[in-house]
Amino acid sequence: MKFEKEQLIFIPIGGSEEIGMNANLYHYNDSWILIDLGISFPDETNLGVDVILPDFEFVKSLKNKLAAIFLTHAHEDHYGAITYYASEINCPVWGTEFTLALLRRKMKENGTKFNFEMKTIPKNKNIKVKGFDIEVINASHSIPQPLSFLIQTQAGNIFHTGDWKSESSKNLNETDYFKSLKKISKKNISSIVSDSTNALIDGKTPSEDFAFNGLMKIIKKRKGCVLITCFSSNISRVKSIISISEKLNKKISIIGRSLNRSIDAAIETGLIKNSNFLDLNKSKESLSNVIIICTGSQGEPTSALTRISQGKHNIISLGMGDTVIFSSRKIPGNEKAIIKLENRFIDRGVEVLNDEDHDVHVSGHPSKNELIEMYNLLNPKCVIPVHGNSKQLRANALIAKSCQIQNVVIPKNGNVISISSKEAKSISDIKTDVKTYDNGNIISLNDERFVVRKHALWNGLISASIVLNEYGEMLTVPKLSQNGICDSVKMRNTLLEISLHIEDFIENTNKSKTFDDDYLVGEIKKIIIKEMKSSFYVRPITNVHINRIQ
Amino acid sequence: MKFEKEQLIFIPIGGSEEIGMNANLYHYNDSWILIDLGISFPDETNLGVDVILPDFEFVKSLKNKLAAIFLTHAHEDHYGAITYYASEINCPVWGTEFTLALLRRKMKENGTKFNFEMKTIPKNKNIKVKGFDIEVINASHSIPQPLSFLIQTQAGNIFHTGDWKSESSKNLNETDYFKSLKKISKKNISSIVSDSTNALIDGKTPSEDFAFNGLMKIIKKRKGCVLITCFSSNISRVKSIISISEKLNKKISIIGRSLNRSIDAAIETGLIKNSNFLDLNKSKESLSNVIIICTGSQGEPTSALTRISQGKHNIISLGMGDTVIFSSRKIPGNEKAIIKLENRFIDRGVEVLNDEDHDVHVSGHPSKNELIEMYNLLNPKCVIPVHGNSKQLRANALIAKSCQIQNVVIPKNGNVISISSKEAKSISDIKTDVKTYDNGNIISLNDERFVVRKHALWNGLISASIVLNEYGEMLTVPKLSQNGICDSVKMRNTLLEISLHIEDFIENTNKSKTFDDDYLVGEIKKIIIKEMKSSFYVRPITNVHINRIQ
Repeated sequence: MKFEKEQLIFIPIGGSEEIGMNANLYHYNDSWILIDLGISFPDETNLGVDVILPDFEFVKSLKNKLAAIFLTHAHEDHYGAITYYASEINCPVWGTEFTLALLRRKMKENGTKFNFEMKTIPKNKNIKVKGFDIEVINASHSIPQPLSFLIQTQAGNIFHTGDWKSESSKNLNETDYFKSLKKISKKNISSIVSDSTNALIDGKTPSEDFAFNGLMKIIKKRKGCVLITCFSSNISRVKSIISISEKLNKKISIIGRSLNRSIDAAIETGLIKNSNFLDLNKSKESLSNVIIICTGSQGEPTSALTRISQGKHNIISLGMGDTVIFSSRKIPGNEKAIIKLENRFIDRGVEVLNDEDHDVHVSGHPSKNELIEMYNLLNPKCVIPVHGNSKQLRANALIAKSCQIQNVVIPKNGNVISISSKEAKSISDIKTDVKTYDNGNIISLNDERFVVRKHALWNGLISASIVLNEYGEMLTVPKLSQNGICDSVKMRNTLLEISLHIEDFIENTNKSKTFDDDYLVGEIKKIIIKEMKSSFYVRPITNVHINRIQ
Repeated sequence: MKFEKEQLIFIPIGGSEEIGMNANLYHYNDSWILIDLGISFPDETNLGVDVILPDFEFVKSLKNKLAAIFLTHAHEDHYGAITYYASEINCPVWGTEFTLALLRRKMKENGTKFNFEMKTIPKNKNIKVKGFDIEVINASHSIPQPLSFLIQTQAGNIFHTGDWKSESSKNLNETDYFKSLKKISKKNISSIVSDSTNALIDGKTPSEDFAFNGLMKIIKKRKGCVLITCFSSNISRVKSIISISEKLNKKISIIGRSLNRSIDAAIETGLIKNSNFLDLNKSKESLSNVIIICTGSQGEPTSALTRISQGKHNIISLGMGDTVIFSSRKIPGNEKAIIKLENRFIDRGVEVLNDEDHDVHVSGHPSKNELIEMYNLLNPKCVIPVHGNSKQLRANALIAKSCQIQNVVIPKNGNVISISSKEAKSISDIKTDVKTYDNGNIISLNDERFVVRKHALWNGLISASIVLNEYGEMLTVPKLSQNGICDSVKMRNTLLEISLHIEDFIENTNKSKTFDDDYLVGEIKKIIIKEMKSSFYVRPITNVHINRIQ
């Protein structure tokens, strides 16, 4: 589609129909910028899939018209797809020191090759890219250095919030968000592209102090080992725990690759002083004097926390008198795995505490009152709720309307939304797909291979091979074998039966047709499936080889 | 193992390490009874599995020493495995009228063959089976006619609660549970085998009136169509909704096979008067005057509710002004599917209400205060918490201890628990497996086929076939094909490459070894996997056919 040069356009290419994989394009003056490029995770309908990626085709088609990528922060749903699309990115990628420190580490660990420049966002200066003049506002979130962007153009100004909350983290020396917003409140904001995650939650999201106090209250009473699992990039939480350990004169040990990567990046960027973490491999310290910080809060099967819960960790063994604190939330879809993890600890006599009954976690997203305060402060013409499921987006829309903002546009991926100083409206659509990474390639989530694999998961597979001579005659008995159905006497008999049917079929086939591979394969598949259906109630994937001897 | 004739024994063969598949054996006087035979559902670690079944091997080994099976109620986790093991059951199966009416319908629908007698539990008479004298106590739950059993023997009396709550359902004319318990409170109860589901929840579980009032309050304000989804066997809920429809002068339509089956059984047993349900296929009634009751509250992909949410139902189309009420709870593991379902309705402008923000559902299990009241009333020597995850079992144990019951035994499946008038203790174990149903057979959940299928889900499959003559020489080029990996030029080239490697390998193989199928297959698999690993990062399942021509 053609974009008018002077048109200010917003296109979400990911993240606006589901939580995760945020990727938001803005156009002005024949030039484009992309804010965030995240991933999301598969659900029960995407069996055999590890990761979900936004579609990069349209972005690629922009070629050198894509002036820059800006990362709001280093959560996977905002920056995780950079590593997947790295080789296709030809413009600078902007981020804060912490965001880029994490990105660099990830690229290095994965051995990802890239050609783009990583540019650190300046602290007190706007970024000017083609027709865009971007003012950077420091926010607060559950990771260091999250940003909101005021995207200023001749056609209108858009406030892109990213993920935020208003209560800042003291231990990260964050500035007051609403104070920063007050400074830009006179800038005639056309539209706010607005985080909807907690739009259904009343009141105000508490600051990190809430979790600090809750954790302190619990930990100071504990005599055994305390293991705290939290999201790896939540450096404010890690600092809260470090601070508690110092007050209680306990040692800290860090377990988990992603947590070590985050802390390493936090140390590099001066967010954490190089604390003396305890290396449990080398230490003889009693675990009762140690606070362990560990990843794996979502019940990930390969995490150290899972191994500890199973009693299979090489150093850490927890039991009666010890405490495991889930300083995190249950991400929908992970509940069952987390409950199983918790119960394995409980079976060992470990006390398990989580955010349902204890004040050990705070969210990083704005609740209702904060959204209201923002809308009242910035008084935009329009609100575009993003980052939430339909219920959350609609709740955010209602909040905007309650603030007398009549123009609310709830976008879908691929919507082309025109934004002027007067209004925002959806004017068209671009085609967007949903992608995944499999066997070294980025492919559609609807790729045929997933249909085959899912079908095989329930129905197994039958392979057959036959040998025909130059006259189309069978030279030996057909070979048949099964995978993933069952190996039993009945199966062996059924395969024998099928083999005989195939022999009969070839013998009775019109001579000329025995030279038609497609015909033979099709008919043999029918024979196999008919027999398997009646004997084993399955319709296996079938694979037939016609070997011809000249 | 040998059981002493006079020993009173409890063995949970299912349900005591997980929620679901309850199956509890009791022994006395060389005779056994089984209470319940339920199923449970797979989680994310059991890909390719539909259902989980308790191990019936030990029960089968008892032969005619198994005197009877008693069903507490007709929930799947208590009676669902009867249909799977039907052909192996040779003793009477006892249940209430409603339980057996449902069981009969299920057997008939599934075409299940069975040889056992279904016996209706008498209303005011004990059941005497070999050494057991069983007094039946009517409970209240989220299905009609739930029972608790007082199992009386010369060696001691056990109170097996089944699923219960104390607040009875008026619209089912249920009797007062605690009044019934008072009557048996002098019977010197050795042990209570006790429902732990809500042991973490304070207070008392409300009666059905709570849901009735909550639904009434919402429905009377609605102008559009109201669709209510609930668990299909919750006849008290269905009656609440019928009663609301009568008061508001609305018609009721029932959608869903399992709901129709339950209502049919309820009509047969006199629990529901034959109401005039509306057949939407034939009616011209405006949907705004109709309350639809529908299954599918857990986001089941094949349910009518899912089709309605997708706008794919042949009769029902909901939109702006209509309301969908989830009069149910989110069963752990289903959250993501339910949220997706809710959001599809929200996307159509339908208002969605659930038990998180509205009083539209009540649990069927006892909360803390009810457990306390029961323990104080019956004053048992011992409590055996069952029906819950580890956290819930332990919470129930703590409640028992707070009631001065020192002897608490938390069982695991297969534990042999000896119960005397003095104490209960675990004395041994029997071997128990976990089973599933696949392709017509009941097999171990650890069967090799699931390993193969899961492996193929991530790695796909390569089939190879070669043809050798009587001298062990290759007669034609090896055939290779893939399933579920990918179909690309690179793949075709890789398969060609592998084909050449196989030719080389056969040519260079010592003559004598070319007659050894196992050797050839093993080596060819190695060649395939090596190449696939380096080119596609997968280790496919491989299938190799050696066709020999004499």
